[in-house]
Order: sequence, then C-alpha cells, then structure tokens
Amino acid sequence: MQEFKLYFVADIKSNMKYPPLQLIEMAVAGGVDIVQLRYKEENIRFLLDLGQKIQPILKAKNIPLIINDRLDVAQILDADGVHLGQEDIPPIKARQILGANKIIGLSTHSLEQAKAAQNEPIDYLAVGPVFSTNTKKMASPPLGTAFLTQIAGITALPWLIIGGINSSNLADVIAAGAKRIAVVSAISEAEDVTLAARTLKKMLENKLV
Amino acid sequence: MQEFKLYFVADIKSNMKYPPLQLIEMAVAGGVDIVQLRYKEENIRFLLDLGQKIQPILKAKNIPLIINDRLDVAQILDADGVHLGQEDIPPIKARQILGANKIIGLSTHSLEQAKAAQNEPIDYLAVGPVFSTNTKKMASPPLGTAFLTQIAGITALPWLIIGGINSSNLADVIAAGAKRIAVVSAISEAEDVTLAARTLKKMLENKLV
Repeated sequence: MQEFKLYFVADIKSNMKYPPLQLIEMAVAGGVDIVQLRYKEENIRFLLDLGQKIQPILKAKNIPLIINDRLDVAQILDADGVHLGQEDIPPIKARQILGANKIIGLSTHSLEQAKAAQNEPIDYLAVGPVFSTNTKKMASPPLGTAFLTQIAGITALPWLIIGGINSSNLADVIAAGAKRIAVVSAISEAEDVTLAARTLKKMLENKLV
Repeated sequence: MQEFKLYFVADIKSNMKYPPLQLIEMAVAGGVDIVQLRYKEENIRFLLDLGQKIQPILKAKNIPLIINDRLDVAQILDADGVHLGQEDIPPIKARQILGANKIIGLSTHSLEQAKAAQNEPIDYLAVGPVFSTNTKKMASPPLGTAFLTQIAGITALPWLIIGGINSSNLADVIAAGAKRIAVVSAISEAEDVTLAARTLKKMLENKLV
C-alpha cells in the first residue's frame, strides 16, 4: 500500500459536532492520508450512502477509503480495504473474500498481538491504545509510549499507533519512534477540523516540531 | 427455496436461557425448518465459530442456515442465505455479491413495504411485527391480524409473519391466513425448547388445531 502518515478514523455517531460528510471533507482538506469509516449503528444504508458520497472526494486526492469491520460494505462500495479488530473476521478469511489487491489492516493491543500479526495476510497493523481514550467503550488498557521503541524491532509491516493522540502529545510519540498515527477525536472533535488535521500532518512531516 | 413453515430466529444475546449451540440443537430437534442467526454484538469470531458448529447439525436435516444482516459472515460460512432489514444492505446489492443460488429474505413492516418487496430480487419476505414484542428495540408498531388477509393478494413470494407469535395466538394467525411463521422468544425463552418448537410446528401442519 502507498505510504501514509495521518490516518483518520471517521467514527460516525449520532452526536457528532459536524455532519459526517462535512467532517470528512474538512479532514481531507487538512491533509489526512487515509480515511476509515467506522460505524456501529444498525442503518447500513446510511453508511453505504455516505461511502458513495465521499468516494469521489477521496479518489480525487488518491486517499484510500477503508471500511471498519464489514467486508460486505467494502465490497459493495469497492472500497480500498477493511480494518479488522481482534474479534472481527479473521484476516485470512478477509483476504480470501477481498483478494490480493485490497488493503487489510488489523488492530493489535499488545506487543504479543503485534508480533502475531506478522503471520497474518495484512498490509498494516494498528497498535494501541497508546493513551487512554473515551472513543471506544471497553478499550484495552493504554500501552504508554515506552513500548513504541520496541515495535519497529518486531514487525516488518507498516504500523501506526492509535489511542488518545493529539497535537499535545504527538511530539512525544514521534520522539519514541512512531511515524504514522491514527486519530479519531483529535480531528472529529476539533472546532477547526481542517486546522487540526493540518497541524498533526505537519508535525508528522517534521515541519512543525 | 424449499417450502417451510417454522422459521426460528436464533437471536444470540449474552443473557440467554440456554447456550446458543444447545438452544439451536433443541430447536432443531423440535422440527424448525429454517434457522436464522441474528447477532448484534461486536465479536464476529464468536458468530463464525457458532455458525461452523451448527452447520453439520443443520445440513444433516436439510435445514437452511440464514445469516441476519451480514453478507460477509454468510460468505465465509457459505451459509444458505441472508436476511435483510429495510435499513440493511439493499437486496439488489446482496444478490450481486451472493449470486443466484443463495436465499435472500427481506423484512417488511407494512403492506406498502410488502408490496414494494415484489420488485426486489428476494426469495421470501417477512411481515411484522404482528403483535407487540420486546425482542427488538425500536420495533415498528404491531400490525395486528386483520392485515394478514390482505398479504396473499399483494405478493406472489413466500411470506412469513413475525412478531410476538406463540402457541396461544398461533391459531388466530393461521385462521387469518398465515402459513409460515418466524419466532424468536416463543422458542428461545421456552423452558422446554424442543417441545415449544414441536407444538408450533404441529399447529402449522394442522395436526393440533
């Protein structure tokens, strides 16, 4: 898959600060490299409709669209890939259905899981949460930044970190070895979504630190 | 699709009276004709595992396995079909992914929706809820039995009714024209699951009424 630094998880909920389409447009304007749609409500037609609306915007900028969890939605949208959790469809099954050309990402919550992910047919892994976060209920305990120095040594795959990362702690995260981050609320809860994304992107490109 | 009378929706939840595998085995012993797995929790691997465990039991009796909502799970299990709600993946998209040989069912909640379903590439439709039920939150208002006499006139598809049907009201439902029913709690909440299924089945076969 193409190189990336700033991965935006658009966690679509009913109580968002901005309408989902507008949120994603603003985040794209700020320079996010990948957009993941995460949606846990029951109305899949809403998700399909949103996906169809954002695809031209993303394709125009060569930004991959990743669907959380649901392969069927990714298939219908012909999205660029899926992101799977440890309790979702196993990557090997996802690869069989989606084929070799789609992106498959996997969430890991410990160095052990990150190591085990080496044997999965995936394109990248996410490790986290680094910090505590309110985004996901029942999230795993935060790993802290010290473990970051160990990840590079255990995986040859592109890895990103996730969980409570924002402009205040990103410098620490970068100093500890992270090159790619995924964010949810640091972008979606910002007053100025575009500025928030742009600031994170510049820090990751070492243009602000 | 093959003819059926008693369609069991195994709505898998954490607080069930019996473990899911045992529940389905008991329902099968009682004569259910179709089993639908409905599961709204986040752990899809649990659903895949349960599906794999019940498949030999169902196949031995030529009982179709239908997966609620998720095409990807149906694909991985090579299940017999999917059941879709009005806000789930549109039947036309499901047909494109699953092909001509899989069963696609659609929930409808009014005569208008049942009529519109005629134009969808589906194999059967469910109409309901007939009576009030606590099984699904935000369920549509109950339709009552009077409308049952009208359904046969508006669809050439096999139709079943769902929603609060049990051995106490089934005779009324049959008298109003229903030939196929789907049940959730009348089977899964029964003390004797096998007996509950057997009783409903016999009533539908006109052997008890």
